[in-house]
Amino acid sequence: MNRSTTTELARTVDGSSLSRHVVVAPGMCSGGSLVFGRIGDWTWEAVAAACRTNVHAARTPEGQPAYLSFYYFRVRGGDAVHPHGLAFGDELQVTSRVFQFGSQAVITLHRLAPAGLGLADTPLSPAELYEHPHPDCLYAENFNRWIARSRPGSNRRLSQVAPPDFSYGALPRLPNPYSPRTLVGRAREAGSFYATPPPGLVPAGPAHTSEYALDVVRDLNGAGLVYFASYFSIFDTALLRVWRSLGRGDAQFLRRKVVDQKVGYFGNADPGAVFTITVRRWRSTARPSIEAADMALRDSGTGRLLAVAGVEIDLDAS
Amino acid sequence: MNRSTTTELARTVDGSSLSRHVVVAPGMCSGGSLVFGRIGDWTWEAVAAACRTNVHAARTPEGQPAYLSFYYFRVRGGDAVHPHGLAFGDELQVTSRVFQFGSQAVITLHRLAPAGLGLADTPLSPAELYEHPHPDCLYAENFNRWIARSRPGSNRRLSQVAPPDFSYGALPRLPNPYSPRTLVGRAREAGSFYATPPPGLVPAGPAHTSEYALDVVRDLNGAGLVYFASYFSIFDTALLRVWRSLGRGDAQFLRRKVVDQKVGYFGNADPGAVFTITVRRWRSTARPSIEAADMALRDSGTGRLLAVAGVEIDLDAS
Repeated sequence: MNRSTTTELARTVDGSSLSRHVVVAPGMCSGGSLVFGRIGDWTWEAVAAACRTNVHAARTPEGQPAYLSFYYFRVRGGDAVHPHGLAFGDELQVTSRVFQFGSQAVITLHRLAPAGLGLADTPLSPAELYEHPHPDCLYAENFNRWIARSRPGSNRRLSQVAPPDFSYGALPRLPNPYSPRTLVGRAREAGSFYATPPPGLVPAGPAHTSEYALDVVRDLNGAGLVYFASYFSIFDTALLRVWRSLGRGDAQFLRRKVVDQKVGYFGNADPGAVFTITVRRWRSTARPSIEAADMALRDSGTGRLLAVAGVEIDLDAS
Repeated sequence: MNRSTTTELARTVDGSSLSRHVVVAPGMCSGGSLVFGRIGDWTWEAVAAACRTNVHAARTPEGQPAYLSFYYFRVRGGDAVHPHGLAFGDELQVTSRVFQFGSQAVITLHRLAPAGLGLADTPLSPAELYEHPHPDCLYAENFNRWIARSRPGSNRRLSQVAPPDFSYGALPRLPNPYSPRTLVGRAREAGSFYATPPPGLVPAGPAHTSEYALDVVRDLNGAGLVYFASYFSIFDTALLRVWRSLGRGDAQFLRRKVVDQKVGYFGNADPGAVFTITVRRWRSTARPSIEAADMALRDSGTGRLLAVAGVEIDLDAS
């Protein structure tokens, strides 16, 4: 017997797309950040397949390690599939597609559909994700940039540099109106995804500030950089503190239904770093059960902005 | 084009074995516990394939969720492949084999070999793991038991119960001398894997005790139980505190080479739990660079023993 058997089996749909059937295992679901880590791994796989680049062991032209770093990660939760709502044994049909985005970056879109929906196994169209998402599905948008350390051993200065075999010319282009570049640029400038509050969002309560010491046990990835998925856990740690200060219980936090989450990554850090995280809450006047957390993470020593997050949670579903 | 393309492709070698080629991705390596989580997922996959049981969505005869819980997890690091030594892009040949171990439990053995070794893709023999391991390879031994909650919503009382479709009769038996049952039973009774210190190990310094509050953001899995891989991070958190008290730096901790680690799981916990972790250090008289940490994790409120760990680290390699 020699049949293929795995909780994941990926196959290419066309030159820019991968599709896979996934049985949700403990290592890809939780209240934590495992699902974001797994989606990120799918991004690397999809880029490796679409760009014929050794993404996992990439090198700069000078032979130093190059990383396909996460610059912006957005996820939209659906009614059936949302980030903290996955359970062991859930079966998903995951479709991933890679788009060109300049010579040193790439955009990857993912759709996580309940396998039972039986959606067509065709390349994911940007219009579906940005304009008419299926209400049951989770969608993710990853904007990755090639980086390398400017100084060996330090995570503080990272520069943009792509490996010489990064081949993006054959990838489809993301239509301009969907480009997250302006949104992310503004969030970086303002330290917030809500500098221009979306219509119908009003401030809810005062800002909360707390500190977080980089967790040497958990927050560093296999390359010694702060792991992109850990930023989700770090922001969640700050958010949980706010929820507790409002008298909300841990059980409600664990059941939270994230309908939209954006994270912008603007800096990394070395062991010993301490972060200051500011959380501002917003609520929707149109849908009072929707609450947004607008969070900025800064290096406590230098004040440098390292990351920004915007999370929208449906409290009625939590 | 419709070729299979993934960082993991598993196939069955015989009725009890899976083999896969793995390209190490960010989601399966770090200083943290991702590699243990991934090995655990491979255990579930291997058991699902070998026992023709829906391990990921198993149910008790009464229809309640049943979990193939981790009761004992041992890993032995090799010269080339060790738990915290994996890097992005490393290519591994992973061989997994499932053995029967009574009507409600199972033992799964894994070998993670550097793909470049080109080891034969044959079923893993217990004698190789227990008696003549390849010096370059990482070996893991998982002893899993079927459990279910005795009371819905509580993690404190878990009972042993297997799903009715758990089919283990065709599995090979683990030869008795290799059974970890006595070792684990003694560790549970004594609260230590070192109650009878192995020859050549002598105590090093006083015991350290610290507290750890269950991390609601990170420690619970998709079933709301404390995640088996999180126990590794919790013990590492206690160990890092000890290392820091000895003046050892974070960089040395991150480079640590684990040559042997055993974790016994004897209880779970609910959100709000606080743990007391006691760490005793031992060193080897024969190989002074080998230091062992002998750790017990108890519920601070009740004193109940929840887990025990023994970790052997080669300080010269760290």
